[in-house]
Amino acid sequence: MDNIMKVTIYLKLKLEVLDPQGKVIARALSDLGFVGINEVRQGKIIEIDLDETDSVKALSYTKNMCERLLANTIIENYSVSIDD
Amino acid sequence: MDNIMKVTIYLKLKLEVLDPQGKVIARALSDLGFVGINEVRQGKIIEIDLDETDSVKALSYTKNMCERLLANTIIENYSVSIDD
Repeated sequence: MDNIMKVTIYLKLKLEVLDPQGKVIARALSDLGFVGINEVRQGKIIEIDLDETDSVKALSYTKNMCERLLANTIIENYSVSIDD
Repeated sequence: MDNIMKVTIYLKLKLEVLDPQGKVIARALSDLGFVGINEVRQGKIIEIDLDETDSVKALSYTKNMCERLLANTIIENYSVSIDD
């Protein structure tokens, strides 16, 4: 056991926001012959190794990072998971 | 129930590959006053709504998409999860 906690942030465009990258991926998959592709959405993962042992504190600290820097909450939803 | 299966692909840079975007995020978090940030790595999520009802087939189909288009397996690892 050490004092490092790994937190993972998932950033996804809100459903009502157009995702052109996703559309490009869907088109490219179809061009390669993949069928049955309905909708593709692309998002981001940010993994942080945090000096913290308390998962409740880590969660609230990470949400604070999302609100202040990592997520554009106008167009993105975020979720945080703690893997300790 | 419908015939759409949602698959999620997680793309992460291999550990031995330098992640400059992660370093920029780590620096920016420190500049904002967040402490205890050790390492930050950024990855991608791709969500696909697939016409498929069999999760085993969906998994193998999606891995094929990763190998042929979505993942750069020289520098990235990928994992696939099925949420049906």
